[in-house]
Amino acid sequence: MLFGRLNHVGIAVPSMEEAQERYRALFGAGAVGEPVDLPAHGVTACFVSTGNSEIELIAPLGEASPLAAFLEKSPAGAQHHLCFEVADLPAALRALKAEGRRVLGEPRIGAHGTLVAFLHPKDMGGILTEIMEAPHAGH
Amino acid sequence: MLFGRLNHVGIAVPSMEEAQERYRALFGAGAVGEPVDLPAHGVTACFVSTGNSEIELIAPLGEASPLAAFLEKSPAGAQHHLCFEVADLPAALRALKAEGRRVLGEPRIGAHGTLVAFLHPKDMGGILTEIMEAPHAGH
Repeated sequence: MLFGRLNHVGIAVPSMEEAQERYRALFGAGAVGEPVDLPAHGVTACFVSTGNSEIELIAPLGEASPLAAFLEKSPAGAQHHLCFEVADLPAALRALKAEGRRVLGEPRIGAHGTLVAFLHPKDMGGILTEIMEAPHAGH
Repeated sequence: MLFGRLNHVGIAVPSMEEAQERYRALFGAGAVGEPVDLPAHGVTACFVSTGNSEIELIAPLGEASPLAAFLEKSPAGAQHHLCFEVADLPAALRALKAEGRRVLGEPRIGAHGTLVAFLHPKDMGGILTEIMEAPHAGH
């Protein structure tokens, strides 16, 4: 067993302000966090708590944001990725590579301050999949 | 506050057998349930537990499955919908309609035996959104 809990569902949004307003109406104002710029990822991210998991609203940041082309195809917004927790990111990457799954780029520090990596959708049933080392994984 | 926990992420898959094999490798054999035919929805559904939430793998069932056209556009599979729990489905639908959000069709019994309804993606930031009355909501 490699993957643990669903940490978040990544949703691309064209306007963070409009998205925050919608999620405040649906989940309550207290569930919607403050947007944080993640320049290394080319996105602004804002987490919404669903109690058991989170939604990560992401909007393009900067000229070279990888989200721009995605939103051209889905201008209203769309589901973008799923993120699952793993206990040990380097070990998980070794196991996934041994199964022939491709990793996109190098592991980086993600929005929660732990290492994350992305797996190629073609090896994951069409789903862009993020794995993140669980916070407080204890090593 | 209308919406509660993320009950599941719906993922369209072209082959249930292949998808089950992939999810067993990633989450462990015990996390992957048995497929169940849902003729009223035109899908076969199989739930995968992530501990804190679930993934609902859905494959087309029957000639008129609404998933067939979806999979033509995304033959490898893709994220299809998000499902959030509500305490009282009729009350939630009244509130959502009052906000101008469109409901697709009539409420039906879903895979967990409670009432579910779908909201139009155009009113939900491009996300096909299912709401389901929480099991054991107590009324």
